[in-house]
Amino acid sequence: MKKRYAIGIDIGGTKIEMGLVDMHGLVSEKIRIPSNVTGGYHAMEKDIISSIETLKKTTNGRVFGIGAGIPGQVNTRDGSILLAPNLQWENIPFKTNIEQKTRLPIVLTNDVRAATWGEWLNGAGQGCHDLACVFVGTGIGGGIVNADRMIEGFSNCAGEIGHTIIQRHGPLCTCGNHGCFEALASGWAITKRTKEIIQDNPQKGNIILALADGKIQAINTKLIVQAYHQGDALAQEIFQDVFDALIIGCVGLVNTVNPEKLILGGGVVFGLPEIVERVREGIKKYSVRAATSSVEVIQAKFTQDAGTIGAGTLAWNTFTKTFTPP
Amino acid sequence: MKKRYAIGIDIGGTKIEMGLVDMHGLVSEKIRIPSNVTGGYHAMEKDIISSIETLKKTTNGRVFGIGAGIPGQVNTRDGSILLAPNLQWENIPFKTNIEQKTRLPIVLTNDVRAATWGEWLNGAGQGCHDLACVFVGTGIGGGIVNADRMIEGFSNCAGEIGHTIIQRHGPLCTCGNHGCFEALASGWAITKRTKEIIQDNPQKGNIILALADGKIQAINTKLIVQAYHQGDALAQEIFQDVFDALIIGCVGLVNTVNPEKLILGGGVVFGLPEIVERVREGIKKYSVRAATSSVEVIQAKFTQDAGTIGAGTLAWNTFTKTFTPP
Repeated sequence: MKKRYAIGIDIGGTKIEMGLVDMHGLVSEKIRIPSNVTGGYHAMEKDIISSIETLKKTTNGRVFGIGAGIPGQVNTRDGSILLAPNLQWENIPFKTNIEQKTRLPIVLTNDVRAATWGEWLNGAGQGCHDLACVFVGTGIGGGIVNADRMIEGFSNCAGEIGHTIIQRHGPLCTCGNHGCFEALASGWAITKRTKEIIQDNPQKGNIILALADGKIQAINTKLIVQAYHQGDALAQEIFQDVFDALIIGCVGLVNTVNPEKLILGGGVVFGLPEIVERVREGIKKYSVRAATSSVEVIQAKFTQDAGTIGAGTLAWNTFTKTFTPP
Repeated sequence: MKKRYAIGIDIGGTKIEMGLVDMHGLVSEKIRIPSNVTGGYHAMEKDIISSIETLKKTTNGRVFGIGAGIPGQVNTRDGSILLAPNLQWENIPFKTNIEQKTRLPIVLTNDVRAATWGEWLNGAGQGCHDLACVFVGTGIGGGIVNADRMIEGFSNCAGEIGHTIIQRHGPLCTCGNHGCFEALASGWAITKRTKEIIQDNPQKGNIILALADGKIQAINTKLIVQAYHQGDALAQEIFQDVFDALIIGCVGLVNTVNPEKLILGGGVVFGLPEIVERVREGIKKYSVRAATSSVEVIQAKFTQDAGTIGAGTLAWNTFTKTFTPP
């Protein structure tokens, strides 16, 4: 039998990534295009369709369907996108549009859940019936699988753990609340806090500042991680607090859904894999014993292509009856 | 057809309650006996079996099965009780024992989940596919139903939301951590905090102290609620903080599992139903909008008999194929 493929699409606010995804979650023929958000929905749709056609051509008709991860809220019933703020999309009949123009079936989910599909069926969670994923990147999002089912929730937005409050009266979050998980442990929070400290006390930040060529506005999470690895005291202090916050956020999730595996992914975790070990120790120490005596804390398998692979994996799971996780 | 019954049993550390539960969740022939914990497991088992036989006799053979809620961790595969600290039970083959001696099938779950079964199929959550229950009594526990399935978790202890940390560096919890949901908003925490404040400043507590006949050790949540209703400033101050903590804990749960209904029950909620309104407002204000635009926050239907009704409802759902929630 000829090899078949799903197309996996990861739509983000700055770039759109896609590729052919095989049944083992291997991705090939990757395409990466900028997100033309200012051009409006139709410009983006045109770019997406043109890339889908390019991918189709490379396989000679062996693409059976498409999966797409969206940075926003999807209506799974009709495949419309209710709201994707970073794309400036609102009430877009995306599934209908794409299916009409490509003649391929498409399945949509939000970006974090797409990555969870990939980890569950082809990644670090393979063979697992109950798992929770926590992705720490610019923001923090989660995905939950319970008894072999993805938890979607009533309005399809389960897993929004980034805005769970873990520190009453804590730092201000982008959502307007104080002390959200995301406001303490995400990439944006790490960068913001570091900049604030250095603003107040440039001396304390001289190693980080040097890495940023002296420009405070050039400081980002990657550089702070780099300073951490160099033993910089400020970066160490900041990450101690981040470890603590990550432990507390993960403890809440483990206590609530009692997973077999807790999978940590996202750019911040891949930049500093020590996080996995810290959370593992913290969970053992702080979670309810019955929930944690068995939980395994592990790193996600997929890095950059997590969204594409996950979306493709979802398409495999949705459109091919023969698909069983390898 | 003759009316049939399940026996619902609610086993607690101080008392065991049971009764006949019909298919609508109505309970009759209630029995309440003290828990003879010091007598050991076999003494308690004997008491339970004797009460089951009494109930069976009243119905003339129309009992088809038993449901029991246990204050501890149940192994659902073999129906053994792994650990129930308040009963001093460890590794007890409860299902096997009871089935051999009563010739009736029994299904076990933990006490909070039993109450969730009752609310879901016969109570405030009837007809709902995705719901979350939060029970605020001496402690705090939760139950989650997602897409028509009770979430059990890998080691059957999902819903342990009481030990989710919502205030880093907050007050000490019985579990050894700081700032747990339960350490801020449960009955034991409310009482402890009130006593501590009055210890330091008896003047401030004169209304509450008067209700407790001047004895600080006689202060309990019920009296503090009574003082709250009388407009006592200290009780008001304490409950403002409790409302806040309840909101934060519920926001985390709503963001994580995205229920259609959030059901609040337990002694503290029934003593002060205003909690429901406060949490409703708080959820609208603090949860992720997509998760909350639709969520209904309501009070649980069952009070004292919640455990018995819930356990009986679970037995109906487990042993009768004809059962559909009315």
